[in-house]
Amino acid sequence: MKAVRFSKFGHPLKVVEVVEEPDAELKSGEVRIEVLAAPINPSDVLTLSGQYGSLPKLPAVPGNEGVGRVVEVKDSSAVKVGDVVFLPLGSGTWRTHLVAPAEGLTPVPKGTDVKQASMLFVNPPTADIMLREFVTLQSGDWVLQNAANSAVGRYLITLAKQAGYKTLNVVRREELAPELLALGADVVLTDTDDLPERVRAATGGAKVRLAIDGVGGDSTRRLGDSLATGGTVVNYGVMSGKGPKLSAAATIFKDITLRGFWLVLWLKRAEREHQRDTYARLSKLLADGTLKTAVEGTFSLDAIQEALARAMEGGRGGKVLLTPNGPV
Amino acid sequence: MKAVRFSKFGHPLKVVEVVEEPDAELKSGEVRIEVLAAPINPSDVLTLSGQYGSLPKLPAVPGNEGVGRVVEVKDSSAVKVGDVVFLPLGSGTWRTHLVAPAEGLTPVPKGTDVKQASMLFVNPPTADIMLREFVTLQSGDWVLQNAANSAVGRYLITLAKQAGYKTLNVVRREELAPELLALGADVVLTDTDDLPERVRAATGGAKVRLAIDGVGGDSTRRLGDSLATGGTVVNYGVMSGKGPKLSAAATIFKDITLRGFWLVLWLKRAEREHQRDTYARLSKLLADGTLKTAVEGTFSLDAIQEALARAMEGGRGGKVLLTPNGPV
Repeated sequence: MKAVRFSKFGHPLKVVEVVEEPDAELKSGEVRIEVLAAPINPSDVLTLSGQYGSLPKLPAVPGNEGVGRVVEVKDSSAVKVGDVVFLPLGSGTWRTHLVAPAEGLTPVPKGTDVKQASMLFVNPPTADIMLREFVTLQSGDWVLQNAANSAVGRYLITLAKQAGYKTLNVVRREELAPELLALGADVVLTDTDDLPERVRAATGGAKVRLAIDGVGGDSTRRLGDSLATGGTVVNYGVMSGKGPKLSAAATIFKDITLRGFWLVLWLKRAEREHQRDTYARLSKLLADGTLKTAVEGTFSLDAIQEALARAMEGGRGGKVLLTPNGPV
Repeated sequence: MKAVRFSKFGHPLKVVEVVEEPDAELKSGEVRIEVLAAPINPSDVLTLSGQYGSLPKLPAVPGNEGVGRVVEVKDSSAVKVGDVVFLPLGSGTWRTHLVAPAEGLTPVPKGTDVKQASMLFVNPPTADIMLREFVTLQSGDWVLQNAANSAVGRYLITLAKQAGYKTLNVVRREELAPELLALGADVVLTDTDDLPERVRAATGGAKVRLAIDGVGGDSTRRLGDSLATGGTVVNYGVMSGKGPKLSAAATIFKDITLRGFWLVLWLKRAEREHQRDTYARLSKLLADGTLKTAVEGTFSLDAIQEALARAMEGGRGGKVLLTPNGPV
């Protein structure tokens, strides 16, 4: 089998290498999975460069999620050869084959697009939890977000629409508007300093109480200044490379709260049953095609440098996926 | 009577003027109060320059708090001539005399220092509420604050000590340390980028869960980076002139929350009884001399420009007070 590996933190393109390894012998109760698709998420890029909130012991195989097909089973009836399953979260998925315990593997629901399924575990719950677990919204309420064209942003548009919320979507490039409107966005706005006035105009002065921030820096401040008194900004990423900030007028005079969201902490803290319910709901929306995001391109493991370069570029049209065993 | 007045927002020294006005006739149930002392707070400076969260209709008399002596009473036994009372909050206190309803006036407890009493209503509750109402602390817990030499900062040192909390006090000038330590500060630190390491060293790695921020900008970020996972930064001022910001490592990976505090909103929202209890407790600490802050100087109304210039300077040694009827 082949795997991407890194032995030090640094520039992602420079630290990854592709290595050949002998196939491990299966122990009783284990299965061998052929990896079909695994995405390159921003958290993977940050892990490679040593900037993520939790870092693996090195050397390590990157990749937190994906889907694969069971090709060998040893002493278990939990799954059978040919089953398509979600790869265990955080298992180092950028490889051709992966060995895992049969118990606890979740089958991908029949009819689900394999590429879309490979992106279930990280971005959809990030969007879903930020939408549900920080501010109690009512049907008809507005939600404001930047990075609206990111994978999280696109999932958020769909999930908000499902829940009956209206979305104000902030983007850097105006030409993205038609695509996001087609996806279900209510309003698309560019990220300039008059954002609060344009939000007010677009909503007819409605009280916007939740903003989702994947950009940081002044973009966070513009979101904060657009919220009603008592509103909350939830920061989950810093595409600008800058930490989130607010104006004093927002924090002090308007009681705006800034919070952060990291799926890793949620997985540590949330009740198991609540986690299962969340993933079951999202998996269903994925299976029926409601939840989907754009794919920029698929790459073999040998093209890992090219794949990473694409994943790190601005102005992408969607997520970059690895397909270690060929096209899916 | 004389009063400070302003008819437009702008540079504080340029918009204030001192005007003579005829004494108003008292109506039944009203008293005339001779103003003894009234402070210049940061909120007054921001009001004059039009940057505060709530602005008066102009022309207006600045000043939100102070103490005075009753000099005339019409048809009321609620107070009597000679009583020293707190001026009603937000009554425009920068004047020689003030007319107010007798009912509802609170007497200054016997033996209280008049200058200290004039500063009861704004800064002490700001320190007290930030210390009590955002994070539930236990005796022995650490609290981190910047602007530790400000009036709020000094009150906070005393109130934390009273409650059994230990304080980490961040200042710009190292030479302030002895004075703050004498006041009861446990640790005094300068505001540089290695603050998180120095906080860790000073506390022996204890979990610091509350930081109080009167500075904004990078100083807020340093506080946030010094807190334990799940901690809260409460921002109440921006002495740096910059809005508060956090690092992405703090918001996302460490679940640090940034909130704001404004006494005006608390006075609108908190239960009346809770407000009365808070002020009664602080008033008692003022009367017995526990709660006090330094006074930089006292000024007559005619010296209002000089007084404002001093209040707006960095490196002051305490609060600037107006004493409109001469030394107290």
